[in-house]
Amino acid sequence: MIFFDRITGMKQIVTIGGGTGSYTVLSGLKNIPDVTLTALVAMADDGGSTGVLRDELGVLPAGDVRQCLVALSEHTDIVRKLMNYRFTEGGLKGHNFGNIFLAALEKVTGDFTRGIEIASDILKVKGKVIPITENKAELVIMFADKSTVEGESKIDKTNFGEKEVEKVFYKNSVEINLRAENAIEKADYIIIGPGNFYSSIIPNFIVNGFREVICNSHAKIILPINLTNKDGHTNDWKVSNYVNTVEKYLGRIVDFILVNNEKPTPAQIEYYKSKIRGEVIIPDDFKDGRVIRAPLLSHAVFEKMPEDALPVTRGFIRHDSKKLAECINNIINK
Amino acid sequence: MIFFDRITGMKQIVTIGGGTGSYTVLSGLKNIPDVTLTALVAMADDGGSTGVLRDELGVLPAGDVRQCLVALSEHTDIVRKLMNYRFTEGGLKGHNFGNIFLAALEKVTGDFTRGIEIASDILKVKGKVIPITENKAELVIMFADKSTVEGESKIDKTNFGEKEVEKVFYKNSVEINLRAENAIEKADYIIIGPGNFYSSIIPNFIVNGFREVICNSHAKIILPINLTNKDGHTNDWKVSNYVNTVEKYLGRIVDFILVNNEKPTPAQIEYYKSKIRGEVIIPDDFKDGRVIRAPLLSHAVFEKMPEDALPVTRGFIRHDSKKLAECINNIINK
Repeated sequence: MIFFDRITGMKQIVTIGGGTGSYTVLSGLKNIPDVTLTALVAMADDGGSTGVLRDELGVLPAGDVRQCLVALSEHTDIVRKLMNYRFTEGGLKGHNFGNIFLAALEKVTGDFTRGIEIASDILKVKGKVIPITENKAELVIMFADKSTVEGESKIDKTNFGEKEVEKVFYKNSVEINLRAENAIEKADYIIIGPGNFYSSIIPNFIVNGFREVICNSHAKIILPINLTNKDGHTNDWKVSNYVNTVEKYLGRIVDFILVNNEKPTPAQIEYYKSKIRGEVIIPDDFKDGRVIRAPLLSHAVFEKMPEDALPVTRGFIRHDSKKLAECINNIINK
Repeated sequence: MIFFDRITGMKQIVTIGGGTGSYTVLSGLKNIPDVTLTALVAMADDGGSTGVLRDELGVLPAGDVRQCLVALSEHTDIVRKLMNYRFTEGGLKGHNFGNIFLAALEKVTGDFTRGIEIASDILKVKGKVIPITENKAELVIMFADKSTVEGESKIDKTNFGEKEVEKVFYKNSVEINLRAENAIEKADYIIIGPGNFYSSIIPNFIVNGFREVICNSHAKIILPINLTNKDGHTNDWKVSNYVNTVEKYLGRIVDFILVNNEKPTPAQIEYYKSKIRGEVIIPDDFKDGRVIRAPLLSHAVFEKMPEDALPVTRGFIRHDSKKLAECINNIINK
């Protein structure tokens, strides 16, 4: 049963994630007709330019929000480039302009979510970008041996080795943003990821209130499986590991599982072999009617890009935003 | 003979200045019907946030341009406030958001003037803001005793004492921006100032090519006389000193001289007495048919404003932007 908007006839799509993965999925979905897009964004980021602004100014982390805003922006290329511009000299060195922009808006309005709304207006954003929480979110990971790592950027850089993850949680009380809750309640389809599992996906699932609202949602959940495992975090994971772990956190099953069936080029495999332990492409072991297999791989050849390039260029093996959007469109309109 | 635009019927008004004075005159003129506004802005500023960005990033000085953009912006108050927001903590402390915005745009486009055009689009600017030059402009003042002071912010802080100014010039070759030249050629009215005489007004007059183009212009020139003298720079100047000095630099006469005839309140006089040597209000000694006397004083009581306040609050005795615009409108439509 799909509850699409009775007034506009638009289907309500919600994405959940953060960073480059959300950028890719939103860039493609932006061009699908008759959908309303809402991007829910993880707020645990504490590294890089985002981390410095978070520490020094006490603002919420802007980096992932910025990427989603740029993905959905219908402004000119030059304005989208401006948002991703990173200063390379002087006291601003390393800071990303878009992050400074969102920090200043939070300061001027006194409210991060209101700041994002104004940024959306300025950037002509098609859809909405909503932080999953407005609380300061300090991520902690605990392993089976009870050892812990604190802070998203530290977790990101930690090699878990043979340690089993027991629990991911916040040090403090982190409540779901009411606007995020409303978006999930009204959603017809929810797309989870793709993205870095422990730093972009899970941090959304563990905010207080998330599990209840997603369990009560009528939305169909679409899970595009990542293309490669993250070394030190999800080594040797298969499709089933992703599905089972996501479902354990959600407390409900997902409805569609999108698996890439396109082979990377020898050059792509070569590039990743040195970086990833195990197979470059995640083994497709999941036999289930919910799995949709499709060619989802980007074959664009990306050189090392200048600092102000759009974030789509960060990875090397990644989803093709157009193919991914087409695949999702087929589900929505079947 | 007034050459107004034959297609649109709009009169072409050009302002020349920089900083708070231009902000005031543009804020008022923005609301006059049937005019097209072009603000030409001095580019010698090398102090504060502007100076730091200029030194560290090699960008052109943005502060005065920003104030003109904000004056002409028809965006929401919150966006105008954002442009004037000054960071108060961390590595960004002291930096003005709007200056960072213009610096990033110059970096992304590789061209300051193009960056201003994009900023104008984003900020919904009514009219145009054009830097008087695109060259790096290093201001020097030389006194009759041949001693010199280099740099706009140093000059601004220097007490000239009894020294007579012999010459104001640039260390390097500073050419007029072609777009500024075109604006002057097409202008029906040119408004000079108000503003700090040696740091906002004169730096426009001394760019190469300025004198020729203004002498050949058919535009009527309107000169609103400053309300107070700057201590250490223009002590004891009368209206005649302003008119004569401006005309000497321009190489032509001005057509209208606007003199305030409204008395400041005792509180305003008291506030300035401690700051200014000589009379608070510039003595009106100029007997000439070109002088228009009108009440031009702002009587708004300004408290010390928060960091993100609009720059109109900087001074204490200043022009009322509405009264000034009405006075100019009467000239244009008489």
